[in-house]
Amino acid sequence: MNATNRMMKLGAFLWPFGHHVAAWRHPATPENAANDFQHYTELAQTAERGLFDMLFVADTTGLHATDPESLSRMSYVAWMEPITLMSALSAVTKRIGLACTASTSYDQPYLIARRFGSLDIISGGRAAWNLITTANPLEALNFGRDPHPDKDERYRRAREFAEVVKGLWESWDDDAFIRDKASGRFFDPEKLHILNHTGKYFSVRGPLNVARSKQGHPVMVQAGASEDGRELAAETAEVVFTAHQSMKSAQAFYADLKRRVAQHGRDPNHLKIMPGFFVTVGRTEAEAKDKFSRVQELIHPEVGVRLLSTFISFDLTGYPVDGPLPEIPESKVSASRRGLITEIARRDNLSIRQLYTHIAGGRGHFQFAGTPVQVADELQRWFENGAADGFNIMPPILPGGLSDFVDLVIPELQRRGLFRTAYEGATLRENLGLPWPALRREADLHRALQEAR
Amino acid sequence: MNATNRMMKLGAFLWPFGHHVAAWRHPATPENAANDFQHYTELAQTAERGLFDMLFVADTTGLHATDPESLSRMSYVAWMEPITLMSALSAVTKRIGLACTASTSYDQPYLIARRFGSLDIISGGRAAWNLITTANPLEALNFGRDPHPDKDERYRRAREFAEVVKGLWESWDDDAFIRDKASGRFFDPEKLHILNHTGKYFSVRGPLNVARSKQGHPVMVQAGASEDGRELAAETAEVVFTAHQSMKSAQAFYADLKRRVAQHGRDPNHLKIMPGFFVTVGRTEAEAKDKFSRVQELIHPEVGVRLLSTFISFDLTGYPVDGPLPEIPESKVSASRRGLITEIARRDNLSIRQLYTHIAGGRGHFQFAGTPVQVADELQRWFENGAADGFNIMPPILPGGLSDFVDLVIPELQRRGLFRTAYEGATLRENLGLPWPALRREADLHRALQEAR
Repeated sequence: MNATNRMMKLGAFLWPFGHHVAAWRHPATPENAANDFQHYTELAQTAERGLFDMLFVADTTGLHATDPESLSRMSYVAWMEPITLMSALSAVTKRIGLACTASTSYDQPYLIARRFGSLDIISGGRAAWNLITTANPLEALNFGRDPHPDKDERYRRAREFAEVVKGLWESWDDDAFIRDKASGRFFDPEKLHILNHTGKYFSVRGPLNVARSKQGHPVMVQAGASEDGRELAAETAEVVFTAHQSMKSAQAFYADLKRRVAQHGRDPNHLKIMPGFFVTVGRTEAEAKDKFSRVQELIHPEVGVRLLSTFISFDLTGYPVDGPLPEIPESKVSASRRGLITEIARRDNLSIRQLYTHIAGGRGHFQFAGTPVQVADELQRWFENGAADGFNIMPPILPGGLSDFVDLVIPELQRRGLFRTAYEGATLRENLGLPWPALRREADLHRALQEAR
Repeated sequence: MNATNRMMKLGAFLWPFGHHVAAWRHPATPENAANDFQHYTELAQTAERGLFDMLFVADTTGLHATDPESLSRMSYVAWMEPITLMSALSAVTKRIGLACTASTSYDQPYLIARRFGSLDIISGGRAAWNLITTANPLEALNFGRDPHPDKDERYRRAREFAEVVKGLWESWDDDAFIRDKASGRFFDPEKLHILNHTGKYFSVRGPLNVARSKQGHPVMVQAGASEDGRELAAETAEVVFTAHQSMKSAQAFYADLKRRVAQHGRDPNHLKIMPGFFVTVGRTEAEAKDKFSRVQELIHPEVGVRLLSTFISFDLTGYPVDGPLPEIPESKVSASRRGLITEIARRDNLSIRQLYTHIAGGRGHFQFAGTPVQVADELQRWFENGAADGFNIMPPILPGGLSDFVDLVIPELQRRGLFRTAYEGATLRENLGLPWPALRREADLHRALQEAR
């Protein structure tokens, strides 16, 4: 047992073939992983067997390259949309949370509030919304927008969007539905609240035509690491997914974000920080390293260069693959990720090839390969040294990487008293140890909406 | 056996407590029907046991009244959003189609194409999209639009929307994904198609990041009965849901729509016309009539007046409930439904109360109560006399009304050779007898998009 009985939170970050960019070429990954619901069912049930807090899927509303020739070596080009996928997975799981990504940039708050509210009802209180803004200009072209709104604008819109969604989730009191068959009164009209929001980006009357769920409303997740991203997270997020190359960087982020949460008058424990952890598990250290090398060798150079280019939002095509990273002009796009990469490049004096090989798995997240004991040691070190409240586990290949983690690492974490041996509750909030989201009184709600404008 | 071996198509039109407006007050309906996924699972599995072609859910993006007091006697105020609900139901069913409604008025073609395309992948080719436009001004207020775009405008937008969605569903050839692990080529770049649509309402580059499904793409459904609605259906729909008070009216609609389909150069058999059929089944005629009366008696007068007002888009509050329907001014909103109601009111000289009682169940659809033989007779009469290719079955109360139909009427239809005894195929298209949607060549696709502008 660890001293405090504080338990690690774990997310299973799903990706069709696994997080490694060459995972689809690995002999152990199913050919049709991206379009096979049965594959995802098995992943979800494996994660639930491992008592993970939640499944997580990322998303983009378009492809990240225009050239079909170069795209054609990438596997992340056609996949299942998160809200449909998670809704379907809710029916084949019982306790695990369902965190899915949806962007505020081209959708409508009423529609997002509804879909996630509905998933929360259908799943019995297991939904989470990972709020993102859409930075890639190619996605804008699918929505008649060119050029893309700048980052400040996207975050201002996101902030108002989030407040409107949360306001819509307060349309009905938890006990609004009396359903008195005798008198014919279905709900108590005093317990219906009309939002009547008029802001800079949105005018939304409400009410939402979805009731509150068993956990009140979906858990709010975010992933932005920039100044704007941190502020929005400190204000509204309950879980933050984040990417770090070292425990030191994770510690700095953790301290900064918890401080910001407190500044917003919130309890720092009510925001869980979960760095991504790209992990290869082997029964021996040699087996783990060998597993990892085997998938690294499958990276096609075109894919590596493309991946790195996308990651840093700068086209590296034409630069010598064995030469250094060129100087990259300042821009507001993905500044936090670019900072990460240039930091690694300079620190370790890496060529473009070495750099893309380095990020091919974790896409900037911490990478680790080792035995169950070594993995547990590393997780414990981060967890007990102010770097994390838990982790978003990113297996290089699926389904094997996830079942390795569940079968080998989970028992080790449980032995150390760092991870649950049974789900604590029925809802995602109960399992994450997050508070019930009490309905704000009208005055508080309207103040929050005013501030979000 | 019927002479031609032509088989009826059946949809199970789901509604939380049943289609009757007072269904929620009936002792046999579950209190939490609107928010209970288990209830819907049972409905879906009952319909699948009955070999129905598809489940169908309607939708609105808001409530249809502003006054909480009057709303509070209605049960259709908070329910599960269709795409999340149907996605979840896809995981607990195997063969039945999943038709859900989504409006073109406030969503984006890229997002609709994705969600329905994804549901089609997840369900193994069982999705259908019921394309609607949003007419109710209260819904506009949830999307910052006031006043509502007029009907012509909504339909022009819908037409372009539908063409863009269909174009996005042709982003990838059916055999685009070669996934050659050895060479590292995931897809054939020649088989990826960029839409590059620029029209009056939408600019959408594409490609869609969802592959084609086992049935090519989701089945296109529509329900509009106006001139604009018929033209759009003739051009793009594969299934039409429609409401008729008499077989005569259904025959006229059927003949007109099939003629329009042919005028668009399509095979009339490739559009299935399915009127709604609000049906109460009893083992005897007396039992059926008694069942129906018992739920009719539960209509609260406030609800009746509200229902009728919503139905005809004209507020009847304040008019004597036992007096006649007043003259209603011309308007472009819901003209087809209003025509239906005024026709009934004049034909039968009905008071407001009689009129709301009349529509409380079927909401303008044909109502029938009888024994399994009588029900089968009526369905057969419509089916064999050019009024219908099938029916959208609307049980007054759920789950009882649906299981009555499955247990009592389906076997009678099967005995007569009017309905399948096993699913013909794995996809919704195969079961409906609809053709595989071949990929259009670029020239044809671009012509269709040009015309939709």
